[in-house]
Amino acid sequence: MTWNVYLSGEIHTDWRARIEDGAAAAGLDIAFTGPVTDHAASDDCGAAILGEPAERFWHDHLGAGVNAIRTRTLLEQADVVVVRFGDQYRQWNAAFDAGQASALGKALVTLHPPEHDHALKEVDRAALAVAREPEQVVGILRYVVAGELVKRAGA
Amino acid sequence: MTWNVYLSGEIHTDWRARIEDGAAAAGLDIAFTGPVTDHAASDDCGAAILGEPAERFWHDHLGAGVNAIRTRTLLEQADVVVVRFGDQYRQWNAAFDAGQASALGKALVTLHPPEHDHALKEVDRAALAVAREPEQVVGILRYVVAGELVKRAGA
Amino acid sequence: MTWNVYLSGEIHTDWRARIEDGAAAAGLDIAFTGPVTDHAASDDCGAAILGEPAERFWHDHLGAGVNAIRTRTLLEQADVVVVRFGDQYRQWNAAFDAGQASALGKALVTLHPPEHDHALKEVDRAALAVAREPEQVVGILRYVVAGELVKRAGA
Amino acid sequence: MTWNVYLSGEIHTDWRARIEDGAAAAGLDIAFTGPVTDHAASDDCGAAILGEPAERFWHDHLGAGVNAIRTRTLLEQADVVVVRFGDQYRQWNAAFDAGQASALGKALVTLHPPEHDHALKEVDRAALAVAREPEQVVGILRYVVAGELVKRAGA
Amino acid sequence: MTWNVYLSGEIHTDWRARIEDGAAAAGLDIAFTGPVTDHAASDDCGAAILGEPAERFWHDHLGAGVNAIRTRTLLEQADVVVVRFGDQYRQWNAAFDAGQASALGKALVTLHPPEHDHALKEVDRAALAVAREPEQVVGILRYVVAGELVKRAGA
Amino acid sequence: MTWNVYLSGEIHTDWRARIEDGAAAAGLDIAFTGPVTDHAASDDCGAAILGEPAERFWHDHLGAGVNAIRTRTLLEQADVVVVRFGDQYRQWNAAFDAGQASALGKALVTLHPPEHDHALKEVDRAALAVAREPEQVVGILRYVVAGELVKRAGA
Amino acid sequence: MTWNVYLSGEIHTDWRARIEDGAAAAGLDIAFTGPVTDHAASDDCGAAILGEPAERFWHDHLGAGVNAIRTRTLLEQADVVVVRFGDQYRQWNAAFDAGQASALGKALVTLHPPEHDHALKEVDRAALAVAREPEQVVGILRYVVAGELVKRAGA
Amino acid sequence: MTWNVYLSGEIHTDWRARIEDGAAAAGLDIAFTGPVTDHAASDDCGAAILGEPAERFWHDHLGAGVNAIRTRTLLEQADVVVVRFGDQYRQWNAAFDAGQASALGKALVTLHPPEHDHALKEVDRAALAVAREPEQVVGILRYVVAGELVKRAGA
Repeated sequence: MTWNVYLSGEIHTDWRARIEDGAAAAGLDIAFTGPVTDHAASDDCGAAILGEPAERFWHDHLGAGVNAIRTRTLLEQADVVVVRFGDQYRQWNAAFDAGQASALGKALVTLHPPEHDHALKEVDRAALAVAREPEQVVGILRYVVAGELVKRAGA
Repeated sequence: MTWNVYLSGEIHTDWRARIEDGAAAAGLDIAFTGPVTDHAASDDCGAAILGEPAERFWHDHLGAGVNAIRTRTLLEQADVVVVRFGDQYRQWNAAFDAGQASALGKALVTLHPPEHDHALKEVDRAALAVAREPEQVVGILRYVVAGELVKRAGA
Repeated sequence: MTWNVYLSGEIHTDWRARIEDGAAAAGLDIAFTGPVTDHAASDDCGAAILGEPAERFWHDHLGAGVNAIRTRTLLEQADVVVVRFGDQYRQWNAAFDAGQASALGKALVTLHPPEHDHALKEVDRAALAVAREPEQVVGILRYVVAGELVKRAGA
Repeated sequence: MTWNVYLSGEIHTDWRARIEDGAAAAGLDIAFTGPVTDHAASDDCGAAILGEPAERFWHDHLGAGVNAIRTRTLLEQADVVVVRFGDQYRQWNAAFDAGQASALGKALVTLHPPEHDHALKEVDRAALAVAREPEQVVGILRYVVAGELVKRAGA
Repeated sequence: MTWNVYLSGEIHTDWRARIEDGAAAAGLDIAFTGPVTDHAASDDCGAAILGEPAERFWHDHLGAGVNAIRTRTLLEQADVVVVRFGDQYRQWNAAFDAGQASALGKALVTLHPPEHDHALKEVDRAALAVAREPEQVVGILRYVVAGELVKRAGA
Repeated sequence: MTWNVYLSGEIHTDWRARIEDGAAAAGLDIAFTGPVTDHAASDDCGAAILGEPAERFWHDHLGAGVNAIRTRTLLEQADVVVVRFGDQYRQWNAAFDAGQASALGKALVTLHPPEHDHALKEVDRAALAVAREPEQVVGILRYVVAGELVKRAGA
Repeated sequence: MTWNVYLSGEIHTDWRARIEDGAAAAGLDIAFTGPVTDHAASDDCGAAILGEPAERFWHDHLGAGVNAIRTRTLLEQADVVVVRFGDQYRQWNAAFDAGQASALGKALVTLHPPEHDHALKEVDRAALAVAREPEQVVGILRYVVAGELVKRAGA
Repeated sequence: MTWNVYLSGEIHTDWRARIEDGAAAAGLDIAFTGPVTDHAASDDCGAAILGEPAERFWHDHLGAGVNAIRTRTLLEQADVVVVRFGDQYRQWNAAFDAGQASALGKALVTLHPPEHDHALKEVDRAALAVAREPEQVVGILRYVVAGELVKRAGA
């Protein structure tokens, strides 16, 4: 069986590529999905396709609607949802995705540095694993999908 | 992954073909479904197969039943439901499909000219996008499925 | 038990009052709900409370959002949903409500004159009864709630 | 009928009291619920009741678990979920609640100042209304629950 | 808590009264519901209220629709569904109700003489108890609702 | 897409073969499923595999359990459920399947001669089509799956 | 609001009374439910009411069926499910209840001594709190229901 | 169609291999899944990947979380869930899986020796078959998947 893993959250670092590359190197049968990660396209897609409204609020509203067609659909089809919280921006959409994933009964994995532990405690409590590095997510997927446990160097 | 897109509503113009052709031209992995668009067949299928009842009401009832075997099944399997409201007829079945799609949590896109905006405000509010032209629906699908944003000429 | 009956659709005739009065006269234990039927308030509630947007489309969008807080909640809590289609307006919201009710598995009753039979055949097919007059809806409710069958004069 | 309204998010300003007072003044039949808003109790409830773990991460984990017994239960029973985003803290739990509410099909209302519009666009897109002030939420509840539309001064 | 018990099936013997009387004598907090048991009213309710169609098939269809407004609603609200199969008629509607109850996850109890055991094996397999006499159903309800076990004379 | 059609009910005539042959002749992309139709195997499978119990009732119970592993699974995966009521036996299991199909929201088609119309009115009311002959079911499937309407000779 | 709390598991110690008494002393608005705790009645209820079968296996089967009418219904209506694992017996039914509660999305609390931690790790992982003493469960309920945090002596 | 069969429970005997080999020998189209059966890996996977916590309780908690990503996902995708109870250990996780399977509506088969019958009566009551030997499970699968009934030697 092919596992569907949705990668939600931060779009400004290479964490998605590190997970996808690691999974590929391990030969895991996983189909990764996620939002459109081109920031400008993600912001402007609604107005660019449907027409520019007079007010900025509705510009965002149009874009969020078009993006939701993609993100809700893929999130609902996922077996595992990984949500990354980075250092920049408020990333409320990442927490929003985590809330959806939790209510839908998805296996949730969070990925963030320890300094966000307190602020993310409600989200982490709903997760089945809290990782610090993308390679740990690869380790989880390798164990979960293929039954292979490779201990971390130094662990 | 193949996306399932159900095209509901008006059956007298070429809007379905324009969307399907546009998606094909963009190389999108989409399976389009929809109702039987042969108007006479759609009206008569029940009585033609099951026998003609004495009253017109039940003729319609038989036909609507047989059509529903198709339409409800395909609508429930869709990821995205596009509902087209045209200039002719009352098209209550289009709004009915939109209501079903909304209650089922489908990503809903409406397609209609601005003159119907006020009458369709409840339906549009439940949609994630309101398009005016089939080409805008193609633009949405291209962004959603392939992550490609092509701005409209003049936008 | 108190039955919850949601009365959806046309807001320009006295059909709701006729049903509610008939049910009260029969001593039925029914709590009737429905949308706000003050047409101006229904159109303007969003902008009046949340602020007027620059474009009419978003004025409607705001109003439809606020109304949906009421209508979706009450519709989801209903045991029976009665949808009235009248002679005026396109009433796509009535058909939209019927679609939601159907997908939610509600007992659906439609109420409309015979001239709309063909246009409403898909909606009627999903209904458990098609009535012509509000008094027939009262008759149905009396039978369903209290087990009393009163034949129509002339029936 | 009594409406159940869950008030999620910021716990450092008087927004909950302003909504509850406004609803009471308007005589609305609403039962308000929400998280425990004593910040220290909310942080420490898990360890205080179940015992202090050796590491801070699990202290938070214990507390988040006990709080979730309350918050998930009340959120699932709500008809309307209002989520407030304030100026302080990251408030990922507010966005997480909004995600749960959205996936559960609750009527969602957000409450935040315009400067967060862009960061909250995905959350706002899932909401049926975006308010700026608690009094607007009261206005929405008054319209939704009682059918009374009171225009804002200056609106 | 009040238990809701739906009594489905045979309408020509006094089994409902025996169960309801037994439960009342034991002081159980149970609200019993069921179909309209006036056979003529049940057959004719649709046509009597909505108008007589030209063909008998649609006469039955109208009646079954009106009855379903009552029976599906009450069955969906039941905690326990008791289905009685008697000696007369084919009683497919009883088995149909049992199938609905089973798919809805209701606690199902069947009530029938041993001579129907083989024919009812699929239905009985989905039931949590198979009773022969109404008094056994009372015994089950007394145990389930009040925790009181009264052994049968001779058992 | 491949349609899944579950054929429930009577196992003593060739109705399944007539439907499957007709669908194959029309080139329809349908996967047909159904119960095990070897009557003796169906009755004895439980005891034959799991051991013979002392009483006949439990012999039937064991068999019904093993059969249900197959029938419930396949019925839940079906898009369309066709239920055949024949002249022999009480066929409560057919009506039971119809009830499950209805509660699960499957597209239900019944197949039976007119003499059972009154006894089956509740089941037929939940169906989207009532057919008399297997060839009519083929006609429905051809229309539904392929959009082809072939009028019956004499219709 | 009244909270519904189901107390599952061990029936040979006074843990239920300690929780119910503690909740009453704290004035909490909670309705406690649970299985019938009379061991003999619980074992024999099926055969006593429905008749003794020839084999012990079916004696247990009959009893488990009658008990399930009570336990499944009450568990499904619970907001919080507390599952107690004691020192005696295998208590697979307690773990079975925990699995049902988890799949139904109930707030799960486990109650057991530390020596069972390793054996119960899968169950505990699905719980929102793991308590050692009934008084801790009271502490959780007091916090969750009334928002009152009373620290444990010595904590 | 490929059947998905999840094999839950005991990991210290060869029962999984006997079922898988038997199914392969019979040419059945079944995809078997299950937990990771390397006991040490299953216990340590959480801490090995995510880091060792200071307390044993959280070591188990981490491992149970990572395992649940696999087990819940595969269990939810299964058509049939077979749960094996052996002679060693308390195996609460097996009963927990059975509870989840039951609440999710899966076809449940238990596999255990008669000495556990009384302790497992609640679990067995929710199962559609209770087997003693892996070969009986193969027999059930052969009948269910392929419609072939092979009587046991001596049966």
